[in-house]
Amino acid sequence: MTPTVGIIGGGQLARMTHQAAIDLGIDLVVLCPDRDAPALQAGARHLRGAPDQLDDLLRLAASCDVVTLDHEQTPPHLLDAVARRGHRVAPGAHAASLGRDKALARAQLEPHGVPTAPWAIVSTSGEVAGFAERHGWPLYLKRPNGGYDGRGVWRAPDRTTADAALDAAGSGLLVEPVIRFDHELSVIVARSGRGETVAYPPVETVQRDGRCHEVFTPATVGDQQLRDARSLAVTIANAIDLVGTMAVELFATTGGLLLNELAVRTHNSGHLTIEACATSQFENHLRAILDLPLGATHLTVPAAAMVNLVGGPEGSDPLARLGPALAVPGARVHNYRKTARPGRKVGHITATAPTVAGARSTAAAAADALVKETAA
Amino acid sequence: MTPTVGIIGGGQLARMTHQAAIDLGIDLVVLCPDRDAPALQAGARHLRGAPDQLDDLLRLAASCDVVTLDHEQTPPHLLDAVARRGHRVAPGAHAASLGRDKALARAQLEPHGVPTAPWAIVSTSGEVAGFAERHGWPLYLKRPNGGYDGRGVWRAPDRTTADAALDAAGSGLLVEPVIRFDHELSVIVARSGRGETVAYPPVETVQRDGRCHEVFTPATVGDQQLRDARSLAVTIANAIDLVGTMAVELFATTGGLLLNELAVRTHNSGHLTIEACATSQFENHLRAILDLPLGATHLTVPAAAMVNLVGGPEGSDPLARLGPALAVPGARVHNYRKTARPGRKVGHITATAPTVAGARSTAAAAADALVKETAA
Repeated sequence: MTPTVGIIGGGQLARMTHQAAIDLGIDLVVLCPDRDAPALQAGARHLRGAPDQLDDLLRLAASCDVVTLDHEQTPPHLLDAVARRGHRVAPGAHAASLGRDKALARAQLEPHGVPTAPWAIVSTSGEVAGFAERHGWPLYLKRPNGGYDGRGVWRAPDRTTADAALDAAGSGLLVEPVIRFDHELSVIVARSGRGETVAYPPVETVQRDGRCHEVFTPATVGDQQLRDARSLAVTIANAIDLVGTMAVELFATTGGLLLNELAVRTHNSGHLTIEACATSQFENHLRAILDLPLGATHLTVPAAAMVNLVGGPEGSDPLARLGPALAVPGARVHNYRKTARPGRKVGHITATAPTVAGARSTAAAAADALVKETAA
Repeated sequence: MTPTVGIIGGGQLARMTHQAAIDLGIDLVVLCPDRDAPALQAGARHLRGAPDQLDDLLRLAASCDVVTLDHEQTPPHLLDAVARRGHRVAPGAHAASLGRDKALARAQLEPHGVPTAPWAIVSTSGEVAGFAERHGWPLYLKRPNGGYDGRGVWRAPDRTTADAALDAAGSGLLVEPVIRFDHELSVIVARSGRGETVAYPPVETVQRDGRCHEVFTPATVGDQQLRDARSLAVTIANAIDLVGTMAVELFATTGGLLLNELAVRTHNSGHLTIEACATSQFENHLRAILDLPLGATHLTVPAAAMVNLVGGPEGSDPLARLGPALAVPGARVHNYRKTARPGRKVGHITATAPTVAGARSTAAAAADALVKETAA
């Protein structure tokens, strides 16, 4: 009895999920329009179709035991429509909607005691000004729905720039103060249908140009904040009735932790769990959605770091030649087999080491070697 | 420029090689007769054909950058015939022949100072008796070519049983004394076409019913013997001009190390490198045959253990239900997706831990849970 998991989207998350599925002897079938999606190049089965077409989603559901997600492009009402026809969908429509809508997530989680920065939904210049009067400039204005990796986010030092953002967005925006934080953390948490929940050791994330550039663990915050972060992730997973794996992104401030956002799927900040933890985020996602016992999440190594590989400014491919990275002892290359475009993630490097400094330096050295090679 | 590796055979070694190929963004094409071979179920490309048909081997060679091996079923002269037509074959015919023929391996390696037990090739009762006069009973009689996992091996306490073995074999046999050893070790070593060579930390292997049952590392021998084992593996890899990955199986005796046999391919004793080492044996095999820099081989964890999962006496499948093993914290399940038959390897469990005892106990607990589940 081989379980089959259907996944909407065939990107790198589906690709790494397929790798985890191989270990467990699980079949993965991918719904996506492209024949050369990263997961398909790794050998997952293909069901050609669109992530936002109910008919295609139902064909996927009919071919598997449970439907899950590689991205946030499927409107939650379609996930719900699939579930109402008796198919298992994990995460469910409600949990998935909180990963798409920052305002919805905050509104739902505040009653559970989850700390967030002050925020409001604003549509007019006057509303922004009112918010600024209470919380001061500068502000962030964000599309509540769909923005990520720096897209759909505006930093507004004053009312003029805020007005420009409102004009550019053409819809209501979430406004919040620019948080002064010491560290950005992320906690991967998995929860199964029977309510078993496991959180991973928090990682620290480093942004570059508004995008995740580097992740490492252990995070450089105090033990109490590490415990609080894990416990917050478990609280949130239970509150939203998560089935699957999720990333809880947090700001660590002098005043404590604040929720930044949720990604209700496996996540870039959890890639290092493949090499560094007793069970990877991808395997625990499969276990969770198939109602299997969840795996241990402890670090099996003292420290680990991950650096994303992105297409160069002219679209050069840092993975065109692997040699320079493979020559760095201890660097682990993950090639997503994506066509390089400027700034597009095409792979990552992970390193484990006795210290965080060692892991970060190995991962950075390998990434730099690839970028130099491309530029040469 | 995606390299394509062609592999003869689609068993679990090809399956795990495919998993490693995904990380590096390498395509794997498998030559085998069966559509449901383990590597194909993991998504490797299929070229239908036989491992001992030159035409099929040439079709494989034409579809890839380098041809390699999942098993020893291809006669070396066919590998040579492929190479003579200008295709890259790694390991080459000569090295591969040493993995098939124990006598050939010993004869070739003794001049390089590689220590072996006393041995001879015998065809008659008188030759066996002569060997026994010099070295004493009991003896092992082994098919020099093709026996493994206890097949093609006879233990002869006296001349009558030796005669029976000769009759049963119907061909010349390799004879050697029954070695009194303290530990069985295995060293995985990888060597690339440019002569770069890396050896892994030696593992200790535990046999059950003449077959590898358990592997763990660090091996429980002294530091000097660990160093000697690694250095011997490097010597052998260079001596046979290995390109690829090989297992060097050794007896650790009070008198020192003795070569038992070579497996000129990735090997069961190296499966724990997936979780325990900076680079897995499968990835280093790919790097070696593609002339990429080899990866670091150090343990990233303090200790690791692996237990094989085999079909039960009535052919029951220990992987029919994964739950009991997944409930053991820290156990990593590898399911080969093979039809269970009595004694057939269908998967393995790996565990890493702060101590060898901890890793062995976790791996054993998970394996036992599966066997109990099947028997229940």
